[in-house]
Amino acid sequence: MKFDVVTLFPELIDIYTKNGIIGRAVENGLFEFGFFNLRDYSEDKHKKVDDYPYGGGPGMLLKPEPMFKLLDAIKKHNSYIIYLSPKGSLFNQNKAKELSQKDHLILIAGHYEGIDQRIIDKYVDEEISVGDFVLTSGELPVLTIVDAVGRLLPGVLGSDESAIEESHSDGLLEYPQYTRPESYQGMGVPEILLSGHHKKIEEWRLFKAIEITLKRRPDLIKDKSIIEKYNKLSQIYK
Amino acid sequence: MKFDVVTLFPELIDIYTKNGIIGRAVENGLFEFGFFNLRDYSEDKHKKVDDYPYGGGPGMLLKPEPMFKLLDAIKKHNSYIIYLSPKGSLFNQNKAKELSQKDHLILIAGHYEGIDQRIIDKYVDEEISVGDFVLTSGELPVLTIVDAVGRLLPGVLGSDESAIEESHSDGLLEYPQYTRPESYQGMGVPEILLSGHHKKIEEWRLFKAIEITLKRRPDLIKDKSIIEKYNKLSQIYK
Repeated sequence: MKFDVVTLFPELIDIYTKNGIIGRAVENGLFEFGFFNLRDYSEDKHKKVDDYPYGGGPGMLLKPEPMFKLLDAIKKHNSYIIYLSPKGSLFNQNKAKELSQKDHLILIAGHYEGIDQRIIDKYVDEEISVGDFVLTSGELPVLTIVDAVGRLLPGVLGSDESAIEESHSDGLLEYPQYTRPESYQGMGVPEILLSGHHKKIEEWRLFKAIEITLKRRPDLIKDKSIIEKYNKLSQIYK
Repeated sequence: MKFDVVTLFPELIDIYTKNGIIGRAVENGLFEFGFFNLRDYSEDKHKKVDDYPYGGGPGMLLKPEPMFKLLDAIKKHNSYIIYLSPKGSLFNQNKAKELSQKDHLILIAGHYEGIDQRIIDKYVDEEISVGDFVLTSGELPVLTIVDAVGRLLPGVLGSDESAIEESHSDGLLEYPQYTRPESYQGMGVPEILLSGHHKKIEEWRLFKAIEITLKRRPDLIKDKSIIEKYNKLSQIYK
């Protein structure tokens, strides 16, 4: 798997992919990573990459020529090209899994103002948005996708981290967690977690996970049997 | 307004807030920005900040002591403390507007594995998630909030950028945009945009904006009269 990023802010992309879990994965060759500064593909002597919109309106748009040149240079037969844009479909964990099966992802960080539609029509396989909010540029959304997809690739997460992955995949929000010390500034740890009774701990955690999901994200609960489970557990743990 | 970020990856926070629109705003004193490395508040000689979860399970959690110390040191009477977490409520543009009214935002970037619940119980005013996907750490979500909120603060966007803001606030996805050249590699610009007929251009753009919103994000269309408008315009522009 290879990621290539098209950006006007290469310093940010560079530092992100040299640190943390993603940086370690790139260093260990678990996936390849490249990035390209769009300005390097401008033939304008001031390295200009944007121009005014036809039909009027505020702001500047990324011009077709530098992007066509850059994409022609890096695109391969198996590339999948994504433009990060507020008008894209919403990114989520299923989309991350789907993208982790691709051979070559090219991610284009948009200008706030937009890009010429012909770039999208000719090259872009999918427009993706990371959420219903407006940002100054597309670099954070690009890195969000690199991170969410990259960590799913084989070997990127250690065995301990993978085990966490498993525990998150039940579609519920996470139960509360506690670590040492047992008491700190008068605040303790729920007794059940100190009991050593693994089955009860598991039940309590499930109860707490359903409780917080019902409170904050009831839209995530698709399976009605979860509610029955919750009602049963709440007689013991509420 | 002041942002303070609690992080284990200060290099990334630093570079983001020294570049682009956000960097320019910080440099011009339009808001204040600080960040703190949690490790600097560890009393452990190896600067350890995490420990095993009570009750068992994989992964490590951020310990209470360094975070209590750090938050006690930077918290003021008017601070609003946010922990970025997959179990938070979903971030969106309304939430960005709401947060832009606060005096002091403290943003805590989570460890992937989680943090001790007592930190949340004692200090955190709100848990926020930027989307339904899993990341290796909370730094990208923190920067997403800094960016989305920061650009709403007075003076941060130039007048041209603010005008774009206006045009996005109708709740529809954006219409296609084109810039020079008029023809490139055989691909042209829709004639209507070259017509100089401003009222028609405006109608065409509205038609295209509704069309793409209906296709990709019908959930965004709350007002039924939009559909009537679309049906009327589609007789002319389809």
